[in-house]
Amino acid sequence: MKDLNSPSLLADQVVAALRSVIGQKAAVLHEPSFSGNEWLYLKECLDSTFVSSVGKFVDRFEADLVAYTGARYVVAVVNGTAALHIALKLAGVKAEDEVLIPALTFIATANAVTYCGATPHFVDSEERTLGVDAVKLRDYLEQHTEQRAGQCINRTTGRVIRAFVPMHTFGHPVDLDGVMAVAHDFNLALVEDAAESLGSYYQGRHTGTFGLMGTLSFNGNKTITTGGGGAILTDDEELARHAKHVTTTAKLPHAWEYRHDEIGYNYRMPNINAALGCAQLEQLPTMLAAKRELFQRYQAAFATVSGIRLMVEPAQCQSNNWLQTLVLEHEQANQRDALLKVTNDSGIMTRPAWILMHELAPFQECPRMDLAGAQSLVQRLINIPSSSSLLQVVS
Amino acid sequence: MKDLNSPSLLADQVVAALRSVIGQKAAVLHEPSFSGNEWLYLKECLDSTFVSSVGKFVDRFEADLVAYTGARYVVAVVNGTAALHIALKLAGVKAEDEVLIPALTFIATANAVTYCGATPHFVDSEERTLGVDAVKLRDYLEQHTEQRAGQCINRTTGRVIRAFVPMHTFGHPVDLDGVMAVAHDFNLALVEDAAESLGSYYQGRHTGTFGLMGTLSFNGNKTITTGGGGAILTDDEELARHAKHVTTTAKLPHAWEYRHDEIGYNYRMPNINAALGCAQLEQLPTMLAAKRELFQRYQAAFATVSGIRLMVEPAQCQSNNWLQTLVLEHEQANQRDALLKVTNDSGIMTRPAWILMHELAPFQECPRMDLAGAQSLVQRLINIPSSSSLLQVVS
Repeated sequence: MKDLNSPSLLADQVVAALRSVIGQKAAVLHEPSFSGNEWLYLKECLDSTFVSSVGKFVDRFEADLVAYTGARYVVAVVNGTAALHIALKLAGVKAEDEVLIPALTFIATANAVTYCGATPHFVDSEERTLGVDAVKLRDYLEQHTEQRAGQCINRTTGRVIRAFVPMHTFGHPVDLDGVMAVAHDFNLALVEDAAESLGSYYQGRHTGTFGLMGTLSFNGNKTITTGGGGAILTDDEELARHAKHVTTTAKLPHAWEYRHDEIGYNYRMPNINAALGCAQLEQLPTMLAAKRELFQRYQAAFATVSGIRLMVEPAQCQSNNWLQTLVLEHEQANQRDALLKVTNDSGIMTRPAWILMHELAPFQECPRMDLAGAQSLVQRLINIPSSSSLLQVVS
Repeated sequence: MKDLNSPSLLADQVVAALRSVIGQKAAVLHEPSFSGNEWLYLKECLDSTFVSSVGKFVDRFEADLVAYTGARYVVAVVNGTAALHIALKLAGVKAEDEVLIPALTFIATANAVTYCGATPHFVDSEERTLGVDAVKLRDYLEQHTEQRAGQCINRTTGRVIRAFVPMHTFGHPVDLDGVMAVAHDFNLALVEDAAESLGSYYQGRHTGTFGLMGTLSFNGNKTITTGGGGAILTDDEELARHAKHVTTTAKLPHAWEYRHDEIGYNYRMPNINAALGCAQLEQLPTMLAAKRELFQRYQAAFATVSGIRLMVEPAQCQSNNWLQTLVLEHEQANQRDALLKVTNDSGIMTRPAWILMHELAPFQECPRMDLAGAQSLVQRLINIPSSSSLLQVVS
């Protein structure tokens, strides 16, 4: 008779639960689905010869994202990292500044900070949202910072903490009320890293539209994809104008003269990628419904597996279910790697959350608060296959 | 009777010469042409669902570029600016360094230097190639720099001049023998900005393969396009490995672990853009032949227009004829703007060379040598319609 607590039994149960939902085939973590107007728009794009940085699909994709997210302005760029880089730069982040970001995030958040010459300052995350713990952060800032001339100064390093970049982990909205209050009370520019949360809402409002700016990603592993792509969201007309200017080499409009008035970037989303994006965005509601159904089936399948639960969208939130996530109970945390191995070996792609940023070589010396929440979570999170096409493929 | 030297007569002659080659329709400066396997490859790409940073077309495009250029390694990236940024970084360019670049170039060359925290140091150009004047540069470096511990020190600023980035203007190869000798003798890392010169050869060898690294661009206005795209060329295995690593977020290979060992970039060319590139590259020989024929027809048409000549490929070079260029005689330099206006007003898109870098706001304080050659050229250069499809459209 098997020991109920043996790793192999839990692994068997997890594989069985996954198989009961996704069937017997191999499954990747997330793959895109192209079943709409992708063809038509790509053909229009080639026929027009406008495949590059100018073309109607870039403008249309931006307008479609405005309509979908409710942001007043959207600027489409080459990827989510570029979007974050420019949002931070326009938020005033300069060399020698610090920027608060979660330790539990993809490395793009931290890299974008360094592109501005600034230093990431790592913040803890909470169990309820997988995002930054606003309550704990407030305590930390009260103890370790002071306000000088309207700026938040890190008393330990003497540097200005200029901005705060919460990230909506796996599509689950962060505690935006808490986060906004911290940003307000400590004079921090709020930039939402909404790379993973297109289609996720907090109290009925789209993520990425609460801060000074928000950023999206349309990488191939995201809910919708443009091949590579990203976007900056903002309600501020001047920030939007400046974002478009600086992502298009800061060239002043003129029929033939090449005058650039500041150092700019070649970050504009090409028209061919935007064409894909327009077609994908049309299918987003269908994809979100399919992902929600997948969530419900997983939830039913894991209801009887003890020691592990499926991550559920936070209260007052509607998550896009980008990456479905299993959360191990604390006592089972030591089984994470065995579960990863067994599932991957059996053709079901799973992965843990990212290694925490402060454990990576380039960021080991960066300032950080106590990260007990993130450290616990990272040992217990496992992403499982989440493609919107998964159920269609099975049935 | 008209004055033979009147601006209007020259403008009339120029418009007539252009019309005799390109016909009566409106013509843009450069537009792409998609008449090969673009469709097929984009369809393969969508059907495979691999549209993003992993996929067979990225690998194939790199291999095809290796075969075409003769570079030992090629790394495909999101655009030419990103290629330059990484090439400079891997060439060792650091904060506070200086990098020699032509004043007569597109702003991407200068911007990429600043992304490394370094300062562009502007160099003059010569009439024969439109590229840097290696003879004049050697004199300047002999007078204003000294060697200390194998490094080239700018005696005026005290900073290290780390690298040298000649650019192959409008596709015409720079004086590579002169340029390589300067780089060697003054201990400068040589990075060729070959953004405009895919298909251009110097003494039978492809541009971009002479320096430590070279960079290409596949922007929509280039000879072939991937929407947005670029590439790094090198013969150095370790540099190639490092370039690929750092352009793909510096993630170490692992089935599920996200460990990054240095600050990296999200610069990988998406598969969908590479699919376009593979189809375009197959047509490059045909396009180059069409562009050469266009050159020959322009040459015949302008043979009888006095005061102006068509730029001819330098000796021992084979240019790709990317942008056809009219060169005004010195006495006619004051007619440039009138010619630009008349041609653009009559539906023939023309443009001058870029404003010289040291005249742009962000670079006015940068160090520079005497720029008399570039200053003269920039008053006398006019690019004219150059698309490879131009003759086909007419006939």
